[in-house]
Formats: sequence, structure tokens, C-alpha cells
Amino acid sequence: MDFAHDARTEELRERLEAFMTERVLPAEPVAREQRAAAADRWEPVPVLTELQREARARGLWNLFLPDERYGAGLTNLQYAPLAEITGRSPQLAPAALNCGAPDTGNMELLAEFGSPEQHERWLKPLLEGTIRSAFAMTEPAVASSDARNIETRIERDGDEYVVNGLKWYISGAMNPRCEVFIVMGKTDPEGDPRRRQSMILVPRDTPGLTVRRAMTVLGFDDDWHGGHAEVSLENVRVPAENLIGEEGGGFAIAQARLGPGRIHHCMRLIGMAERAIELMCRRALGRTAFGRPLADQGVVRTWIADARVAVEQLRLLVLKTAWLMDTVGNRGAHTEIQAIKIAVPRTVTEIVDRAIQVHGAGGLGQDFPLAELYASARSLRLADGPDEVHQRSLARRELARHAD
Amino acid sequence: MDFAHDARTEELRERLEAFMTERVLPAEPVAREQRAAAADRWEPVPVLTELQREARARGLWNLFLPDERYGAGLTNLQYAPLAEITGRSPQLAPAALNCGAPDTGNMELLAEFGSPEQHERWLKPLLEGTIRSAFAMTEPAVASSDARNIETRIERDGDEYVVNGLKWYISGAMNPRCEVFIVMGKTDPEGDPRRRQSMILVPRDTPGLTVRRAMTVLGFDDDWHGGHAEVSLENVRVPAENLIGEEGGGFAIAQARLGPGRIHHCMRLIGMAERAIELMCRRALGRTAFGRPLADQGVVRTWIADARVAVEQLRLLVLKTAWLMDTVGNRGAHTEIQAIKIAVPRTVTEIVDRAIQVHGAGGLGQDFPLAELYASARSLRLADGPDEVHQRSLARRELARHAD
Amino acid sequence: MDFAHDARTEELRERLEAFMTERVLPAEPVAREQRAAAADRWEPVPVLTELQREARARGLWNLFLPDERYGAGLTNLQYAPLAEITGRSPQLAPAALNCGAPDTGNMELLAEFGSPEQHERWLKPLLEGTIRSAFAMTEPAVASSDARNIETRIERDGDEYVVNGLKWYISGAMNPRCEVFIVMGKTDPEGDPRRRQSMILVPRDTPGLTVRRAMTVLGFDDDWHGGHAEVSLENVRVPAENLIGEEGGGFAIAQARLGPGRIHHCMRLIGMAERAIELMCRRALGRTAFGRPLADQGVVRTWIADARVAVEQLRLLVLKTAWLMDTVGNRGAHTEIQAIKIAVPRTVTEIVDRAIQVHGAGGLGQDFPLAELYASARSLRLADGPDEVHQRSLARRELARHAD
Amino acid sequence: MDFAHDARTEELRERLEAFMTERVLPAEPVAREQRAAAADRWEPVPVLTELQREARARGLWNLFLPDERYGAGLTNLQYAPLAEITGRSPQLAPAALNCGAPDTGNMELLAEFGSPEQHERWLKPLLEGTIRSAFAMTEPAVASSDARNIETRIERDGDEYVVNGLKWYISGAMNPRCEVFIVMGKTDPEGDPRRRQSMILVPRDTPGLTVRRAMTVLGFDDDWHGGHAEVSLENVRVPAENLIGEEGGGFAIAQARLGPGRIHHCMRLIGMAERAIELMCRRALGRTAFGRPLADQGVVRTWIADARVAVEQLRLLVLKTAWLMDTVGNRGAHTEIQAIKIAVPRTVTEIVDRAIQVHGAGGLGQDFPLAELYASARSLRLADGPDEVHQRSLARRELARHAD
Repeated sequence: MDFAHDARTEELRERLEAFMTERVLPAEPVAREQRAAAADRWEPVPVLTELQREARARGLWNLFLPDERYGAGLTNLQYAPLAEITGRSPQLAPAALNCGAPDTGNMELLAEFGSPEQHERWLKPLLEGTIRSAFAMTEPAVASSDARNIETRIERDGDEYVVNGLKWYISGAMNPRCEVFIVMGKTDPEGDPRRRQSMILVPRDTPGLTVRRAMTVLGFDDDWHGGHAEVSLENVRVPAENLIGEEGGGFAIAQARLGPGRIHHCMRLIGMAERAIELMCRRALGRTAFGRPLADQGVVRTWIADARVAVEQLRLLVLKTAWLMDTVGNRGAHTEIQAIKIAVPRTVTEIVDRAIQVHGAGGLGQDFPLAELYASARSLRLADGPDEVHQRSLARRELARHAD
Repeated sequence: MDFAHDARTEELRERLEAFMTERVLPAEPVAREQRAAAADRWEPVPVLTELQREARARGLWNLFLPDERYGAGLTNLQYAPLAEITGRSPQLAPAALNCGAPDTGNMELLAEFGSPEQHERWLKPLLEGTIRSAFAMTEPAVASSDARNIETRIERDGDEYVVNGLKWYISGAMNPRCEVFIVMGKTDPEGDPRRRQSMILVPRDTPGLTVRRAMTVLGFDDDWHGGHAEVSLENVRVPAENLIGEEGGGFAIAQARLGPGRIHHCMRLIGMAERAIELMCRRALGRTAFGRPLADQGVVRTWIADARVAVEQLRLLVLKTAWLMDTVGNRGAHTEIQAIKIAVPRTVTEIVDRAIQVHGAGGLGQDFPLAELYASARSLRLADGPDEVHQRSLARRELARHAD
Repeated sequence: MDFAHDARTEELRERLEAFMTERVLPAEPVAREQRAAAADRWEPVPVLTELQREARARGLWNLFLPDERYGAGLTNLQYAPLAEITGRSPQLAPAALNCGAPDTGNMELLAEFGSPEQHERWLKPLLEGTIRSAFAMTEPAVASSDARNIETRIERDGDEYVVNGLKWYISGAMNPRCEVFIVMGKTDPEGDPRRRQSMILVPRDTPGLTVRRAMTVLGFDDDWHGGHAEVSLENVRVPAENLIGEEGGGFAIAQARLGPGRIHHCMRLIGMAERAIELMCRRALGRTAFGRPLADQGVVRTWIADARVAVEQLRLLVLKTAWLMDTVGNRGAHTEIQAIKIAVPRTVTEIVDRAIQVHGAGGLGQDFPLAELYASARSLRLADGPDEVHQRSLARRELARHAD
Repeated sequence: MDFAHDARTEELRERLEAFMTERVLPAEPVAREQRAAAADRWEPVPVLTELQREARARGLWNLFLPDERYGAGLTNLQYAPLAEITGRSPQLAPAALNCGAPDTGNMELLAEFGSPEQHERWLKPLLEGTIRSAFAMTEPAVASSDARNIETRIERDGDEYVVNGLKWYISGAMNPRCEVFIVMGKTDPEGDPRRRQSMILVPRDTPGLTVRRAMTVLGFDDDWHGGHAEVSLENVRVPAENLIGEEGGGFAIAQARLGPGRIHHCMRLIGMAERAIELMCRRALGRTAFGRPLADQGVVRTWIADARVAVEQLRLLVLKTAWLMDTVGNRGAHTEIQAIKIAVPRTVTEIVDRAIQVHGAGGLGQDFPLAELYASARSLRLADGPDEVHQRSLARRELARHAD
């Protein structure tokens, strides 16, 4: 369980830090202006395209992908400090490195479970960053954290599958460059609960697929990342070879996808917390009330100390989880993945909330990144299963350890 | 300290409940559609105008104003249960009754401190609801909760005052019908700290006053209420008679205004909490996960119980504060006003947050009112002074009680 | 819902305040020394006997009992501010006024449900303070908050009942003057779940009843109040007329007893919180660290403010509950009784904990009353049903309100 | 930063686990009985002496001491998992291994700063376990977390020093085998604030040293560990060679002592948390209320999950701190030592509190180790400086990182 950076990680870390300082952070206000002036705000901003070109040139592309055929071949432990750094500028940095959700998870999924044709048709352009993708699992009508509840139907009809269902909070789908949806649905509604689901690729332009509207998150629509769409599928027909893996394999693929997806979110959340702490400290040092800088006032100090102490713990738990995933596999790290899923979004949400409080009214507004960080962190207490589902499951395993 | 509703309150309460059920709640989706379709989203939606007409017809107009010359002449204790009810639909109900912030505070201020000419020119159209107003105190550059920090200058020049300064989070100012600003600034920057400030009326169309941009609150811009604007004042000249009260009286007027403003917010917050509890319960009853309704799952029950227990306490403290304001005056109720300012926004924020959690991803989105309730409640932990300023002040008085 | 003190309450309150200041608080160190020097520490200390005599002389005796035949005939609302005052010195004041648990509940129970012979034999000496009593409900082997779990058997055998069972945390039973136990057990284990239990009077000297040992609470044994005993009953025979009320009436009597018992605890807890706040403030004012009094340090101020704001709310909720019990009866006030049972012990525990923290190591020791206050408050999160049982039940009723 | 157990640690860990299972845990009830039956309860119980003999025979003696001349020569990282295991039985295991506070800190201090004569006279018998020692720093009259406040005087007078002062919460001092006190006091009250203090060895039988009374901690007197005494020093004369190190070196020695002392407490606290989690789970599995085991009830699951997630984080932070102490020294690990001092006692206190709640009334009593665990954990939020002092200091360093 050695968390020290090896030489490769350290070299990449330094390169990434330089990229952040020289290019990404200065691009933040530029991006904001471009966003405000954009004809179609769902399109990626031009400065992002520049950053992507530059990231590629600097060898900072597709770092997330452990599959050496296609990506950097980093372990989770190597990737963790890098993903954390991108979290400090969550609107730009992950996308600049082609390391943003949900594409990363989709690319991993295709690399592992996709057919050679699917690799050629979808994975490669995703790796090039020329197209984007979405993962369509959550449904408005059911508690989707329990995959057995999924109601979307995928029915075989000759050489095709017919898909019917309603999905929402489909991240990235508002981006017009999002050209393909990986849709989770039931192929065998009466079968073994863990063999009922399948996953299938649905191109955006397939008749019957409609991107209906953008869902918001605490007032934000995350146009940076292609938003979160409500998507209906009405008698959508795709060729049978669009199925990913085998029929009934959807649950297993989802499980395989979720582990890395969750830890990537947690890595970035730690970077978000670091950004919030930095802003909180700068504000506390620079702002005077009642004759003394906020930094001299006890309660702000308590918040800063607690934030630092919490982040140190979260980071170590994420690193341990990454190390476990690397050594015993995602299944072996199941408890730890749940542990970080429980702890990191919740704690980072609290840290950002306190940073907001130190900033006064402005903390909730658009002149600081805190409100948007808050919305992101808060939404991750619900995405990929609410806290309570993971607590319940983790407790069951803890209880089992103590049952005689 | 009798909190029972008297006959008049009870009669008004029933009338208001009927109005809510018959008109306001059904208008919510209508208003949302009108908002989405509006050419200028800062304009009030048409359905609001209808509601206002109806409220007037039903005798539910200007209930907030204790001054019998102009308003309903209700005591704070009588008004409390009515304001609470409007909080259940905070986008529409307060405005429908001409009882929304910041106009209520401005009308009270003018009724108490304004000259007869100011009554005629500004107060009357405000009472009619034909114009709206803003209260310009907060500044981006200083901790405005300490009024001594205000940097805007109001300088006498012959028969005029010249105003220079930058304000932000000026609620209501994006509404084009907002025709007048009550601006707080310093007339005597070197004088006694509590006699340095004055308040002055600045019509919107005065040269030099620029409404620069809309500030957001957690991604919302509160277009319902005319938003929150950044407003610059550059060599703005107004006649000397636009001063409210006397030179140096600004601090005292602000103090007088803040008490009622704060308690009105708290009354409505309790209604917002009731709405959140109702939504949380309905969702818990209607949603099944892992084979059982959420309502049968322990942690949701804990949240519901704690929310109910908290709201009962908050309401009683607000009622006691209202009763004190009625009997010993706003100054005599100073500690209690601070107590509710500390307790109510914080607790209601937590209650709404848990209601969101019960709703899953949708809880953060636009299909439920929870995200917007959250933003409102959260912002009130900062508006009119952050929690920490009030804690500090209340503690000082508590400590003084125990100093020998 | 008028919470103002009426003339009688105000008169008693002033009389009681004088008694506290002149006699009770000065007796605290005396009692501590007498306790340390006592041959049998379970015996009441001599100074308590003096205080009782004095309380009687001052007309401050049996204030708790609403039954005018025997007690002061105060309503709950009248008694609340008086009980609160006694909470400031919880080791001495309630006992000094013959208003301490569990005797108060037992006296109420006997007054309401006891036969004339039981009144003569047990109630009158209890009212005189010449004997003490215990209430034997909780059992070590089962979750006793669910009365259906009670396993003690009470079986009819001719003119007698035979009692078998094991009870623990039987408060007051270590006091040798505790001469009678009210024992809850099952007379009809197969009957309707709410008609299975009965209550019966068992004199201490009955063969088969053994006071086995003193249970501790966070290291304290509450010798002040006769401790908390483990009591076994092995073939204990008592005359049939010792049954209280009718066979099968135990559950109903328990319910009737618990409401007043719970609110009395809550009233006193508020006084305990006031004592903790006073100590916290005095310490904060008198102690210097890092060059400034603790009172000037932000986090202590936050604690003081939050404590004051919380206590104001708790007191109002207790008063409302008292008023409801007086007007609609204990059953009608069921939700509110649960609400205070949930809120008051938990919040007061936190307040005392923070007062301890302000005192440093000494806060946990015997030189301040805080550690003992902490243990008392903490134990009331478990006594009469743990928080979670009440949350569960209160939530069920809240949910029912929102079920269509 | 490799946290994996090396071969030696793993071997010791297994040996220690066997010792715990075979000897220590079975000795717990024996010790309790011996304690209850003891003539002098401050004397160590006989079973402890047996355990010590056995621990020595098994090669589990003085594991704490990194100094290879005298101890096991383990690094902090090697010692951490072993100390954690002893924390599961905190009354017996640390003492059985001669690894209990405050002797460990005193032995380290003497090994590092003591003269050869002091090694011979005091360190060796301490290492043998034939005598015990105390560390006398805290004073009742001042905030002792700020060492500058210490008021005890140590004055040179010819070949002797004269010590005057009053100390309290001097752990271990009630044990009659505690033969020596390391006393902190001021030799140069007007000097540089960090050079004013010195430390000196005062044998228990020195005239003028009086062990006045046992201080309690939440009702416990920790007789297991020799309690916590109030100790007065009145004109106590000791030879000048009893000074440890040089005059004015007391502050630096205290700093050196505190780091290892704090981390040892934290290591054991994690074992205490593990014990609490185990008890909580067993209780939840074995106890039924309202027709279902507590383990099936949501809120208990939440507590179990949160406890597990918290403990994993705490352990990693302790291991990182240990690793830093081993690699960059105690001074280099200053921030991390403060971080664990802030996080571990507070979090473990909460975990134990919830385990108590799951146990009902019994959780606070003597039949489970939880109440005593609670008192230990709670007291460590105050011992060696209250949380707030460490938060303040850690925040100052965090703020400094962000000051431009």
C-alpha cells in the first residue's frame, strides 16, 4: 500500500501543474466570456478546443484509460493525483485532457466490452475527442439506484432491437457533438434480476430518440459539459450488433463501469475541495469585518482547519481505494469504492458550503466558482446512487463480518 | 404571550388558504410556462397580475403593513401565520398580495420616515403595486454586514445630493418596473460611526445610475422577483428633498427597517419548510426502493421527524419574536430577531436539503420547487448579515448577562 | 396558547427563585461533603432533609401534582417555569420540593389509578416525603421501549399474584427509604398486545425481591437520587389488592404516566441547559488563552449563541406541549410530547458538552456540575424510549397527514 | 508512503492478536472482579501482573520505544497497528505490554533527554515495569494548553531546586507504585517565552509533594490506570541533578514528548472505535424491536456505515502521520500530528456515542465497555490541548500557505 508518486506519476504531475497554471486557469475567464457570447451555449467553447490541442501536444491526453492499446495505461493510483489536479478547474481541465465524465466511463466500457466494430465506429472518435457520448441509465419514474427498477425495454425484433423508455439526467446529451447513447434497458424483464438488463448503442440521429429538454441542477444547467438531458426513446430501432457484450450482460457491465466512474469523481472532488480551501483562505486573509481580518476570527479558523483535516483523510481513502482496485480489482475494492462514494461528495459539499459562507453574498454568485462547485459536489451525493443506498449496502457487509 | 389566532387573523387565514388552493398553487405551472415563453423574463408574468387583482378583490392586499393609514394594520403576531402561508409558494404568493421583499421593507420605511411628498410620489404607487422598488445597501468591496464599511458617498452640492458607489445583490432591480432605489451611503464619513450614513431616493432613470448585470444565487437569477442586480452610481444627482429623514439618519433607519424585514423572511421560510416536508412525505410514500416504500426506511423517517420537530420550534420562536415586537418594539426584540435570523434560514436550508435527497436527482432539478427553495433559504443565511455576525452579537449580549 | 405567567405562577416563581438563591445553591457544596462523608451513600444527605422542611414551610411542596386533593393543583403550564428552575440544581432542588422522579410519576399514577387503600398505604407517605418509591419497567433482556417486549410475569394464584422477572435501571431503588416498587409485567401474555400488561405494588421487603446491584450511568451511580438498581423478582407473592387498576390495564396506565414524566424531565433539562450556559459564559469571561479571554474567541461565541437560540426554542415547545396537555389532554398532546422527548435531551446534551469543552479538563471532573449534568441529559436520550423510537413514531404520524 | 505491514510488524501483529484472544480479553471480567474486591483500588489488579509476565514471555514488551538500546526499536509505522490492537482493551492491554500512557511518554523523554544517572535510577525500573511515573504539566488555574501560562515555579537554591505549584489531572499518580513525577515549571519567568520552562524529576516521597485527591472524568476515576490526581508541590526540594536536560529546555522537551504521546493515543483510539463498531453490530444483530432486528432498521445502518467509513479514514491519516514522523521527524509531521489530534478523538467519541445509543440504557452502564470508552475518548478532546487550540494553530499554517 505505497502511495508515494512513482517517477512517471511525478513527471506527469509536474507537467499537468504547468499546464494548469500556464493555460487552464487563465482560460477560465475567457471561457466564461465565450460561453456568454455563444450562439449555441451547448457547443463546447472555442478555448476548450485550443486547450485540448495543447494538452495533446503536452502528452496529457487520455490519461484516464488503463488500457494501453488506447490510453496512457496508468494505474488508478497513478491517475489519482492527476485527476485531482483537474478537479481544481472542473469546467475545463477534465475536458481539456479528454478525461471528463461521462465519456471516460463510456470509453472504458467500450474498450473492455465493445466489439472490434464498436471500437472502430465509436471508441476511436471518442478517444480522438471528435465526438462525445452519453450514458443513459437514470429514469424519472423509478428509483434507478436499484438497477432492477429500470423500466426501459430493449426488445429483439429480427436483426434489430427496439428500444422504448424515458431517461433523464443524461449528462452530456445537450451537447450537439454527443453522437451516441449507451442505453441501459431490460431485455428479459422476467429473468434472473441480475440478468434482465442489456446495454445498447443508440446513435443520436436514430429516429424515435428525442432529446427533450435540459435538466437543471440547483439552477445550473452545466452547459459546460453538455448539460443533463431528458431523453425519450420511442420505438427506436438499432441493428442487433449495437448490443454491447451479450444479452443480459447489462447489470455486470454497469457494475464494471461504476467503480472507475465513482473514483474518478472522487479524485476530482478532492481537487474541488482544494480550490474551495484556497478561495476560503484568500478571502479570509483579504476581508476585514469588525476591525479584524476574517482570518483572525475563530469560527473561520475552525472551518479552515476542519476542511484541511477532512481533505487529508479523504485523499488517503481515495488513494487506498485506487491501490486496491489496481491490486485486487474493482470487485475486491467494492467496500472502499462505496466508502469514498459516501464520504467524499458529502464532505466536499460541506467544505464548499463553508467557503461560500466566508464569501458572503458573492459566494453564491457567478464571480466565484464556489456556487458551481457546490452544485457539482451536491449532485454527486445523488448521482450513481444516493448516499443512503451505499450506506445501507456497506453496513450490511460490516454487519455480516460480525455475525457469528 | 398569547399565540392563539384572534378572530380577524383566523378569518384572514382561512381566506388566504382558499386563495392559495384555488388560485395560487394552480398558477404555479402556468407561471412557469409564461416565464419560459416571455420576451423579457425580468417582467412579471401575466398570471401574477391576475393573482394580484384577485388578491385585492379578496381583501388580501398589503397585509404586511401595520400602518393603518395605508395597510391592513395587522400586528406582527397577526401577520405571522399569513406570511407563513405565502411562503409555501414563494415565487407567486407574496407578490400576489403585494407583500414581497424588498418592497414591503421599503414601503414600511417610507411610511415611517418619508416626507408627505415622498408618500405621494413613491409610497402610494408602491402600495398600489404599479411600481416596484429596490433597497441598495450591499457593496461588493466591503463586508456590508458592518454598516460602517459602506463606501458609497452621498455628498451635498447645493440643492442636490451627488451619489457615487457600486452596489450588488440589489434584489428586484432587474425588474423594469422597479422605478426607484433607496440608496444607503455616507454623508459624513468622519462623523460618529452611527451618524455617518444617510438614505436617499434615486429614481431608476436618473443619469449615472446603471443596472449593470444580474447576479445569480446558486445558478438561479430569481427572475421571478426582479433578480439581484449589480448597480453602479456615478455622479448621480438627485434633489436634496429625496433624502429620507435627516442627514446622518441612515443607520437608524436601516436598523428600523431590518427587524421587520428579517421576521418576514423567517415567517415565509417556515412556510417553505412546510412545503418541503409535504414534498418529502409524499415522495417517501410514493417511491419504492429495494422492495419497500422510502417511508418505511429508517433514515427517511428520522429526517421527517427531525424536520417536524424543528419547524415547530422555529415557528414558536418567530411568534414570540412577533409578539415582542408588537409589545416592546423592535429594539426590545433585538435579541429575538437575531435568534430567528440565526436559526430559521439555517434550519430550513437543512430541511430542504434532506427533502432534495429523498427526491434523488430530480430533487435538484426544475420539476420540483425544492432546488429553488434551497437557493432562497441558503441565501438568507447571508442576506441581512451572515449567521456569524448575528451569533457574535447575540453571544456578546448573553455574555454581558453573566458578567458580574 | 398564552404562555405568560399568571399571578399564581409568578408568585411561586419568585418564591422559588428566592429559595434557590438563599438555600439550595448554598447547600450544594454542603451536600457534596456530606455525601463524601456518609456511612451509607445511598441515604439522602442530611441537608436535603433540611431543605425539604424549609420548602414545605415556604409553600413549595408537591407543586407537581395537578390533583388538588393532594398537591398544588397547578396546570402543566403553571408548573413548567417552576420545574425549570429546579433543573438548575438537579441533585437537590427537585427532591427538596418533593418533585423528583420517579416519585412524582408514581404519585400521579397512584392518585389517578390507585384504590383508596393504596392512597392511604402508599400515596400519603410519598406525599409526605417519608418514603420513596420506584417504577420497575425496563428489563435487560428486551427492548423495553416496546412495552410488548416486557417479559416479567404477574400470575394470579388465589388471593395473590406471583411476580417473576428481572428489571434494571430502576431509579431510586438503591435508596433504603424506597419502600415500594410499582412493577410492570404480563398477566395475559397471549392476549391483545395492549391488554397483556398489568401494574402491581411490591413492597421492598417482600421475600423474593432482591435489589442486586447499582447500575452506573457514564461512571456515575446517581447516589443522590437513590441510584439505578438491578432488581430481581423470584416468586414474589403480593396480595391481589396490590394490583393497580384492573388486570390488563398496565399498558394504558404506563401511557398515562409517561406523558407527564417526560415533560417534567424536559422542563428540568431546560434549567440544566441554563446552568450550563451560565457556567460556559462565566468561564469564557474569566479564562484567558493566547492573550485574550475565551469570550473574545469566535468559536466560543458561536457556541454561546447557538445554545441560547436553541434553549429559547426548546422552552417554547415545552410550554406549548404543557398548554396542550392542559387543554386537550395527554393523548391530544402525544405528538408534542414526542417532539420534546426527541429535541430536548439531545440538544441539552450538546449544550452541556460544549460547556465542558470550554472548561478544559476540569469540565469533565467533579469541581463543576457539568459532567453530572451531561450524564443526566445523555441518559434521557435513552430513558422512556430512545430518540429513534420516538422519531419513528412521530414520522409515521407526519406521513399519515400527507397520505391521500 | 508505504503502509503495508512489513514482515516484522506482521509477525508481531499476529502474536499480539493471539495474546489478545487467549489472554487479555478473557482477563477483562477477571480484572473487573478483582478491582471490585480490591483493598486499595488504586493498586494494579493481580491479573495485570500475570498479563505483564506473559506479554514479556511472548516478546510483546516495550514495543513502543523506538530506542533500540531499551525497547523494540519499532518505527511509528510499525508500532501503529500494534498499538491499535491494544486499544480494543484499553484498561488492560497497553499496561500489559508496558505500553501505557503516561509511562511511555516519560520513558521516551528520559531515554532521549535524561542523564545516564537518570536512566539508571528511573528509566530502567520503568522499562522493567517495577515502578510507574507521572507527567505533571496541567494546572487548574490556567489554560495549560498554552505552556506559557504554566505558573509552577522551579527555583535554583544552591545544589537544589525548589518547586512550588499546583497540578491536576496528573494521570497515573493515584497508583501507589507511581514513584516519580516529571514536573514542568518555570525556571526563568521573565525570559524568552519558549525558554522559561524546565522539567525536573520529583520522587513521590519528597517532602512537600502531596497527592491530594483523585479527579474524575465523567464519573470515572480511571483507577485502572492510577487515576488522575491533584498534586500540590510546596517548597519541594530536589537535587539539581534531577533537572532533565538543561535549564530552559522544558518547552522543547514538552514539544518532543507530545508528538509521540498524541499519536499513541490516536492509534489506540482507533482500536477503541473498532471495539465500539463490533459491539454496535453485535447488538444490532441480536436485538429485536418492533418486530425486526435493529440491524434491519435504517438509522442504525447509517451509523454503522458512517462509523466504518470514518475509521478507515482516521487510520490512514494516523499511518501517514506515523510514516512522516519516521521519515521527516516529529517537527516535520507537526501539521499531521495536529490533524489527528483534532480528528481522531472527536470522531471516535461520536462513534462510541452511537454504539451506546444502540445499546439502550445498558450502553451507559458497567456491563458494556462503552461508557468507559466514551469517557476516555471524550477526555482526549481536552488532554494535550483542546480541539480548538489545535484547529487554531493548524488553520494559521493553512492560511500562511495561501498568503501571497
